[in-house]
Order: sequence, then structure tokens, then C-alpha cells
Amino acid sequence: MARIVMKFGGTSVADLDRIANAAERVRREVEAGNEVIVTVSAMAGVTNQLVGYVDQTSKMYDAREYDTIVSSGEQVTAGLMALRLQSMGISARSWLGWQIPIKTNEVHGKARIEDISTDAIVARFAENQVAVVAGFQGLSPLNRITTLGRGGSDTTAVALAAAFKADRCDIYTDVDGVYTTDPRIVSKAKKIDMITFEEMLEMASQGAKVLQTRSVEVAMNHGVKLQVRSSFEDTPGTMVVDEDEIVEQQVVSGIAYSRDEAKITLVRVNDKPGVAAAIFGPLSDGSINVDMIVQSVSPDGERTDMTFTVTKTDLGRAIEVLEANRPEIGYENLLSDDNVVKISVIGVGMRSHAGVAQTMFRTLSEKGINIQVISTSEIKISTLISEDYTELALRALHTAYGLDAQ
Amino acid sequence: MARIVMKFGGTSVADLDRIANAAERVRREVEAGNEVIVTVSAMAGVTNQLVGYVDQTSKMYDAREYDTIVSSGEQVTAGLMALRLQSMGISARSWLGWQIPIKTNEVHGKARIEDISTDAIVARFAENQVAVVAGFQGLSPLNRITTLGRGGSDTTAVALAAAFKADRCDIYTDVDGVYTTDPRIVSKAKKIDMITFEEMLEMASQGAKVLQTRSVEVAMNHGVKLQVRSSFEDTPGTMVVDEDEIVEQQVVSGIAYSRDEAKITLVRVNDKPGVAAAIFGPLSDGSINVDMIVQSVSPDGERTDMTFTVTKTDLGRAIEVLEANRPEIGYENLLSDDNVVKISVIGVGMRSHAGVAQTMFRTLSEKGINIQVISTSEIKISTLISEDYTELALRALHTAYGLDAQ
Repeated sequence: MARIVMKFGGTSVADLDRIANAAERVRREVEAGNEVIVTVSAMAGVTNQLVGYVDQTSKMYDAREYDTIVSSGEQVTAGLMALRLQSMGISARSWLGWQIPIKTNEVHGKARIEDISTDAIVARFAENQVAVVAGFQGLSPLNRITTLGRGGSDTTAVALAAAFKADRCDIYTDVDGVYTTDPRIVSKAKKIDMITFEEMLEMASQGAKVLQTRSVEVAMNHGVKLQVRSSFEDTPGTMVVDEDEIVEQQVVSGIAYSRDEAKITLVRVNDKPGVAAAIFGPLSDGSINVDMIVQSVSPDGERTDMTFTVTKTDLGRAIEVLEANRPEIGYENLLSDDNVVKISVIGVGMRSHAGVAQTMFRTLSEKGINIQVISTSEIKISTLISEDYTELALRALHTAYGLDAQ
Repeated sequence: MARIVMKFGGTSVADLDRIANAAERVRREVEAGNEVIVTVSAMAGVTNQLVGYVDQTSKMYDAREYDTIVSSGEQVTAGLMALRLQSMGISARSWLGWQIPIKTNEVHGKARIEDISTDAIVARFAENQVAVVAGFQGLSPLNRITTLGRGGSDTTAVALAAAFKADRCDIYTDVDGVYTTDPRIVSKAKKIDMITFEEMLEMASQGAKVLQTRSVEVAMNHGVKLQVRSSFEDTPGTMVVDEDEIVEQQVVSGIAYSRDEAKITLVRVNDKPGVAAAIFGPLSDGSINVDMIVQSVSPDGERTDMTFTVTKTDLGRAIEVLEANRPEIGYENLLSDDNVVKISVIGVGMRSHAGVAQTMFRTLSEKGINIQVISTSEIKISTLISEDYTELALRALHTAYGLDAQ
């Protein structure tokens, strides 16, 4: 007997037939004698509709009301999944975030889980009852509903697995695992059988949408055995594991890309102490995240160009903030470009292998692709290039790093 | 300054434009210096969609899950109304049943409100905050969401008015008040300016859909000043008041009808003590409500015919129950007919006026309409007739009782 968490995303519970299909997977685990917690997203499209209502009602909305509205989608799916399981003769009940409770902080719209009570649900395991938990939602210290950010049901699943000391956390989705890169673009992309937490974290944060970044962090911190697998096929998925569990490690495990990037260059900024703070302080105050940053050396030592990236959605606000603070910053010109893409090659193997970055630069150069910005971490190299070359760059790099399927 | 409850039904919050329109009405009350509680139904169509999901998922559904699912509609509207008010510069927040809490009993699907906590909301009146309360829902003693039955948001509104000792409870709807009968059928129907609680209760329970029956009961028991009025027009509505507040009382105030009726006749039942219990006991055990009952005298004193009505939806189950209990009851034949309608004339004036029933019987007879069953109360006379004559009977009775508009 094992204790397992099963998470079904929006496409896996898109309609009543798919909920029935997901319930069949739950049945198999129950019949194998397991203690099962199911967590579900909203039916595909529902969250977008609710977010649309909010956007149309109020430009500067109250995030507490946003959470109240948007969390209702998972509430419906949890109830329907419980009913479906009951109709198959399986004892089940729905649990909303406030009923368990899943306690979070007060940061509405992207709250963090702080504590999950387990006693009530564990008591019902003894009666063979399946707990169906509404994903994506929690309870603030002020008794309001919070949500965990887009993709937050992944984090619900992993946090439940950690709190209940589950033997496995299976994330059921519409793909059968994590791929070396996006198979819609690179037909030779391969499913990865095992990937380290660190790599998965970089893949998720650099644009691969298969798991919410925060869920990988929580899984890594609590040693949750995480698997990404298909709701529709019975193939093995991708296991996310500790590094020492992978015997033969690739140098590069995967290539991620993000189109949600925009580049800003401040031309001829005064090169004096404190100028970085003058630029990035106001952006931070405006909740605008800055990602890649490059400061070019000025020939005369007095002026410099500062280039950095923000998300496409933040570009307009970032420009407003920078123009408002132009006197303090002191730049000659502001250039912006949102026709860019960030390509990241990721692999823990690059820690011990030289030349990984050089392969990326040479490959892009051979295809005539200009690199605009570079940033690196211990297990990742990211380059910003023109969005026009996205497909070309992904395919060339996938081949260059030996990732192509046979 | 007054304290008021404003309730907006599903058609009054059917889409974002109508929510905005309803919010304008709230603004007026706030700007007049009033303390305001708003309660809202689900956007029109949402509850039916959710109920449809439940019906398709499970025939014998768990009412606790039904309530979890169906209550989400009001949750969304409450959040959107709060956001809309905020965008107009009015302080507002949404309150869900479990947050206030609105405590109910455990009868899921048609729970009764037992207690409403007022402190938190009253404290916020001092900050001019509008409370937007999700209608139709409460919290069970076991921490599950309950719902109050179809039309339950009316009861939420009245119960809030009672708990908060509100000066007024305004029910905003898509008609501008209570009519002498259904104006879609009788073009000469008139809006009633004032109606007694007792009459309103009979109107609602005999088929007029403008208010949930339970809400009128609660209003009557707590002396809530109740008004039914239009969301879309600025005309005065119908006041529901104590009898002594109406100076010139009509003999008959209104005529209601219900098509949700079916007739069952048990032919040649053994006419012995205990036979009524043998018939109605099993129906009651099956949660089937029996309405009108007529026992015909048997010529020989040994056998009798028993005729009664149930709702159309219960007819199939009622027949099953009666056939299963045929040996104990001992009847020769079971006849059923769901092509019937119940017509009720209602008025507190009939307590002191003779001949009211006779007018009904004569009028129907003059139109050649056969009366199948009769039942009466102190302020109501109901007759069951063939559904084919619904419109003819309503128009003739409306004229006969002098209710036609000039």
C-alpha cells in the first residue's frame, strides 16, 4: 500500500467525459489498495473566462476579489470529481482550501502555502475515502480565499504530497512527460525519462510550461517523488529526481524558450555609482521583474549603455516608470524591442563539462543569428535573440547538443 | 440614515452590464447615506448549467457535493459586484456564506438558516463599506457549504434583513412587482401596491415565482419590511406588509397557478381505519410531498376512491412507491394524470366575505371547465382542472373577481 497524490490539469478535466476518464485512473490506484488524494484544476477555459470577467469589471482590481472569483472553477471540478467517483462506488469527498485548511500567506493572486492540516483527511483514509482537493486555492490569515498563481494546482499537489508524506506525486497532463524541447517546434524532441529537480526548475522558469516553477521548488525542498505523465495514454512519464538517482547524466538535458520577453536599452547612462539602483529601484517598486541585465563598458568611462529584459506584458509600464525617473537616472535615449525570444540550454552536466556555452554561440553564429544578450547560471546558458529565429535556433541547438531522437 | 438590504436576482446580474446597472442602484443608496448590504444570485443560466453537470455526472448525487458545486455561481457574482462597486469608488467586499458565517442546519439542497453573525459586517459599516453577500448559501455544522433551495437568495436577503435589523429589504427583479396574476397570460393583470404577508405566502406557495416561499415566512416572522421592485425601471414596487397596514383590503388579491402538478387516483381502496396512513406513509418516507387530497364516499361503505396530487417530477416515483405497497393498501386500480393545473384565488378578505368560493365554481362552470379536486384554506381556494384550460380559467376568474385593470 502506498499513499499517493494525483493531480489532473485543466485539459485532463476539460469536460464531464474527461473527468470520467480521470476518475478511472483514480479507481485503478484505489483498487491497488492505495490511499489517494486527488487534486484538480478548473475545467479548461473556465479560469480564462473568470479572469476575463475580472479584467472587464475593473482595471486595478482588488486581488482578494479576484481570488474569490477565480477559485470557483476548481471548486466545481472538485465537486464533480467526487460525484463521479461516488457514482463508481468509490467513497470520495471534495475539500476546498478553506475546509482543510490549506493556510497561505496574504499575497493574493500568488500566495505561498504555509501549512496544511492533515488529520481530518488521514482519518478518512481509514474508511477508504478518497480526498478530492480543489487545486490552486488556500486560506489567508484573514479568512479570505487566496490563489497560488497560474499553474498553482501543481503546487497544491506537491505541497499535499509533502504534508501527507506521500510516496508519489503524479501530475497528469495532456502530454506524456517533459521533452528535451517543445515537440510542436522540434519534431525530433524526445521525452526525458528522468530529470533532476534543478534542471526541471530551470526548464520551468525559462519557459517550459509543463510544471509551475514553485511546485518544483517545493518538491525539491521536501524530496517529493514527482512524476509528469499523460492522462490519456498508459506510457511511463518523466520522473523528477535527485541528481544522484541519475546514472548517466547528459551534458545538456533540455532546451527551453520564452517568447514573453521584451528588451529595453538605456543609451548613454551616466556611469556613476548608484545608477543601477536609480534604474532598478523604481522598477522593483512598480512590481516589474527584471531578468537579464547587461551593462556595456563605456569607452570614455563616463557613459554606459544598460540593456535588460522584462516580460512583454510589463513593457509598457516599465517604459512609463523609466521616463518618469529620467531626471534621476540621466540617460540620453530609451530603446525597446519586444520582437525577442530567450533560448536557454539547461543541464547539470555543464558543471563538469567545458565548451557547452561555446557550442551554443557557435551554433547560433553558423545560422547567422545575432545574440543580443547572454546570461548564465551554473546549469543554464540563456541567450536573447530575435523572435524570428525561434524555430531555427531551437532545431539547430537540439541537433548540436546531440538531443535528436533516432 | 437607514440600514437596507438589496437583493439582485439572476436576470438582474445576468451579465457584466447588468451587474454595472445594479451597482448604480447600490451607489444611490450609499450616496443617500445608507448602510447597505447587497446580496446576489448567480448570473442567469449559471446555476442551470452547474445543475446540469451534476445531473449528468451522477443520478443519485451526494447533496453535499451538489451544494459545493452549485454555490460557486453566487461566489462569482458577489466578487464581481464588489469589484464593480470598488471601480466606482465605493468601498465594498464580498462575503461568502462560510465567511460571515451564515450558519444553517445540515439539510443540504434546502437548508434552513439558523444564525447569522453580524459583528464583522457591522464594524465595516463605520468605514462606509458595502457588504456584498453571496446569496443562496450557508455553512453546515460540519463545515460544508449548504444551499437554501431554488430561489434561496430571497431567503438570504430576508434573513440578513432580520439579523441586521434592517429598515428595508428590497428584492430587485425583472418585473416591477407582484401582479394580480401572471401578466404574460392575462394582459389585464395589475401590479399590486401592497399585499399582506399571508397572501404573499399563499401566492408564492401556489405557484407565483416572484419570491421564494421560505423568504416570505421569514419576513413575516421577523417583521421585515419587504419590497419587490424592478432592477430596470424606477417605478414603485409591491410592498409586503402586515394586514393592519392595508386600509382598503380587496376580497381577492391575486390568482396563482401551478402547472407542476400531477393527479393520482387509487380506485376502490378498502375503506377501513388506517388506509390513509398506508397510502401516505410510504410516500412521505420517499420524500414525496402530497398536496390536495380528496376521499370520495363509497356507496356501500366498504370501498372508496382516494385522489391526491404530487408534483410532476415526483409522479414516476410516487407510482413506483404505491405499486410496491399495493398489498398493504389494497386498491383495485391506479390512475394518473399529469395534464392538470392548480388554480388558486387568494385574499385575506375572504375570511369576512361569503360567496368567494361560489364565484370561482360558477365562473369555471360557465366556461365549461370541470373541477377535479378542490382544497381550501382560510385565505385561499384551489381547484385542480385540466391544464388545457389554464389561460381561459385565469382570464375568466380575473374578471369575475373584479381584478381587471381599467
